[in-house]
Amino acid sequence: MSAPAQGQRIAAILGAGRTGAGWAARFALMGWDVRMHDPDMRAAPHFEAVLARARRSLPGLLDVAPPVEGTVSWHAGIADAVRGASWIQESVPERLDLKQSVLAELDDHAEPEAIIASSSAGIDLAQLQGDLPRRGRMVIARPLAPVYLVPLVELVASAASRDEVVEQARSTLLSLGCYPLRMGREEHLMGRLSAALWQEAAQLVADGAADAETVDDALRHGAALLWTQTGLFGTGPIAGEDLRVEVEEPVQTESDPLSGMPRAPRRAQPLHDVIDRLEARAGGLPDGRDAPQEVRDAALSSLLRGLKGADWGAGRLLRGMDRRYDDTPDLEALALTSPLPTASRTIPVDWVGQDGCVAEWRVAELMDGATWRLLRMVGCDEAEGDHQGGGGPSDRGETFLMAETHLRHLGVARAGDAVTVETQVLSFQGRHLQLFHKLWLDKRLVASAEVLLVHADRRERRPTVPAADLAARLSALAAAHQRLPRPEGSGRVAMRPEPEV
Amino acid sequence: MSAPAQGQRIAAILGAGRTGAGWAARFALMGWDVRMHDPDMRAAPHFEAVLARARRSLPGLLDVAPPVEGTVSWHAGIADAVRGASWIQESVPERLDLKQSVLAELDDHAEPEAIIASSSAGIDLAQLQGDLPRRGRMVIARPLAPVYLVPLVELVASAASRDEVVEQARSTLLSLGCYPLRMGREEHLMGRLSAALWQEAAQLVADGAADAETVDDALRHGAALLWTQTGLFGTGPIAGEDLRVEVEEPVQTESDPLSGMPRAPRRAQPLHDVIDRLEARAGGLPDGRDAPQEVRDAALSSLLRGLKGADWGAGRLLRGMDRRYDDTPDLEALALTSPLPTASRTIPVDWVGQDGCVAEWRVAELMDGATWRLLRMVGCDEAEGDHQGGGGPSDRGETFLMAETHLRHLGVARAGDAVTVETQVLSFQGRHLQLFHKLWLDKRLVASAEVLLVHADRRERRPTVPAADLAARLSALAAAHQRLPRPEGSGRVAMRPEPEV
Repeated sequence: MSAPAQGQRIAAILGAGRTGAGWAARFALMGWDVRMHDPDMRAAPHFEAVLARARRSLPGLLDVAPPVEGTVSWHAGIADAVRGASWIQESVPERLDLKQSVLAELDDHAEPEAIIASSSAGIDLAQLQGDLPRRGRMVIARPLAPVYLVPLVELVASAASRDEVVEQARSTLLSLGCYPLRMGREEHLMGRLSAALWQEAAQLVADGAADAETVDDALRHGAALLWTQTGLFGTGPIAGEDLRVEVEEPVQTESDPLSGMPRAPRRAQPLHDVIDRLEARAGGLPDGRDAPQEVRDAALSSLLRGLKGADWGAGRLLRGMDRRYDDTPDLEALALTSPLPTASRTIPVDWVGQDGCVAEWRVAELMDGATWRLLRMVGCDEAEGDHQGGGGPSDRGETFLMAETHLRHLGVARAGDAVTVETQVLSFQGRHLQLFHKLWLDKRLVASAEVLLVHADRRERRPTVPAADLAARLSALAAAHQRLPRPEGSGRVAMRPEPEV
Repeated sequence: MSAPAQGQRIAAILGAGRTGAGWAARFALMGWDVRMHDPDMRAAPHFEAVLARARRSLPGLLDVAPPVEGTVSWHAGIADAVRGASWIQESVPERLDLKQSVLAELDDHAEPEAIIASSSAGIDLAQLQGDLPRRGRMVIARPLAPVYLVPLVELVASAASRDEVVEQARSTLLSLGCYPLRMGREEHLMGRLSAALWQEAAQLVADGAADAETVDDALRHGAALLWTQTGLFGTGPIAGEDLRVEVEEPVQTESDPLSGMPRAPRRAQPLHDVIDRLEARAGGLPDGRDAPQEVRDAALSSLLRGLKGADWGAGRLLRGMDRRYDDTPDLEALALTSPLPTASRTIPVDWVGQDGCVAEWRVAELMDGATWRLLRMVGCDEAEGDHQGGGGPSDRGETFLMAETHLRHLGVARAGDAVTVETQVLSFQGRHLQLFHKLWLDKRLVASAEVLLVHADRRERRPTVPAADLAARLSALAAAHQRLPRPEGSGRVAMRPEPEV
């Protein structure tokens, strides 16, 4: 056990179950050395799996480089694990006697300046602190799973917790990318909210009034999309409603005052005491923006389109809509005497910046979609629903890969603009395919893209020529389009070198 | 009043408040002609504002073209409004007598094959149907606001509703991009769930145990992010937990069985009746994927990064993290004898496709970030936090716009890979700036981008030369970089013509 390097931040994680492993991954990826202790021999491989998932997802949330990943070491005893640590996170199973014994032992060995945080979900902090000498340095820092991605951490202090420790804990949690929320009189805020929802849902299922799938489907296609953005109280004002009317109205209407959703008639709500406080706040919502409904719509669009990329939740519905309204023409039915229609769509509201114009790199996304529609038209399928990821392999692992793209930005498009792309096949030789896309807004050319693709076998990791039938279709198309005028602005791509596949 | 065109689908919207206007916008944008009726003269301008927002956001959810937008007409009477309509949506205020009188009047005039749907939030369908002759064609189709974006529609049928009408309603709602959820014995599923959460939250605020901001912050940085993806019951199994242990454990632990969150100790939960049903379902979750935790992480990353783009909810936290860890060097401190470091980041998990490789167009996004970091280094600020949207204007409305981009894809990068970009200024003349970015993964060149930018005044919509101090910095940089070797693969962009600004 070497002494910790000077200046390096060290966290000790006691208990490496789901919560402890998640904490350890977050600390390590945010640059802390992590000292782990867990009596269970299975903890280490479990942690490695959690860390691997966290490495794929947490650092990528930033647009900048996070600190260099810290080291992780395992320690047989608590005394050894907490050596040199400035943060000690207790995440052992939720039993009072067990937690008390762990805290008593680490109290003997922790560095004097260490913050001692418990992940405890259900035990009061004061019970954990008891009369331990270090109780002034103890807080509860309660995360949600997956700890390495969900920002919320409930920060609980008792009367015995020292103010500067609480402030230091808050500051450390912020630096880890957490959202530390200082609990007031109610120490289990998220738990109470979650329990209220869970209890109602479980009651519905237990009564046979709805099944579990229906409950989940309602939430993820419905109100959860709104709560994710604005929480609960924020929903009403952003919907453009007068808060006082909204809050007072349900007395007659039996509908949820802020969301407009019905409330169960048997409930009496303690609303009237809250009106003034909410109204005082509504004027400032949301964060002083001019047009909260437009911000909400852009955020909702971004959420829904993000779920579509992940093929998950409400995003699956949108994929179904794309299939329903897909107007990809049948290649056999086209005369080939003009460029092919390869995209017809509307500019999403989350593709534009504050100036209202579509971001330049979104044009690359749009052109990528046109490339893949053309490839589908000639029978080179991407994997089902894998548009977001670009080229999915065929059954044989073969696909076209983008080698070069030359984009020209000629005009401006805005959210809600209906645009089309038409595509000319400039050449097809061996395994190389050269396309020219034009992006139109009505009769105005907004952008062009010249694209050079190489056919490859992704499994065997080498370039290949396409199968004979696919090659024949591409050759016929290239020959027909050879008769069209060469597009202005073409000739700016060349295959040297071929990309790695 | 001309007769409706043959074959065109027509919807009549009775009541054009928030809900009716939202319905009308969705119908119109999904290709239906819409006939509106509302006695309030202010309804028309309000609807125009809703329609404008919907046009910006709804069609862009699709990657294909939606049907051609329908026409909207206003009608003074109900009888006239419902003429020719195959869908009639009643969205008048939530008063039984008012709704009954509207339904009675339209019952006299509706087309025989029309579906009559009420948006009613709190009134039972059977009460609305009464003994009206058309009661068999009546359902409740209850949306959430904004109706044009949130997919959930609760579909309620009574014993009097005919099965084929309900099925036809479901099918129509699906074609509109809604998620019709057939209600079982509980007709107000979303309302009951929402009311449970609202009641608990209002109680917390009324008691002074937490304030409204804290409740909202907990939800939008915490569990709402999970509910949006998986609903409530789906959260546990996806977290990789054994469901039976999870459900039985809270009896000892006082923690929420599925999410691991604490539950309020005073609640008794009707869990045991539900265990078997949930367990039977857990095996199949989520939708037969192999690695549900990885799907969840990608979806969470996508949600969080989407909110970051919108500068909203948990996304604001991520923007703060970027500022905290921003390692943009000070130009004055650099020797200018090598290319500038313009990006250092990790590939987000939602940037890769099923093959695990980063999508080609995401490289354009990454290079765009490098361009903007270089511009910030020389003192050409984009608007605060406007990275997503590309070039935000300076105080004088001046900015650089992308004119051409030439991308070469040379290698492969995967989720979690730490990559860097270095940038050489190839030339700066008048208002034209030419850059060359190299994207590195360790010592491997993954991609290059040659970028040509033009300086412009976005307010006056004309190209301009930059201010003298900015021009001087760019000239010095270009002169210094002139001494570096010309990058292999450069010289593929040219400014003809200049883009529209």
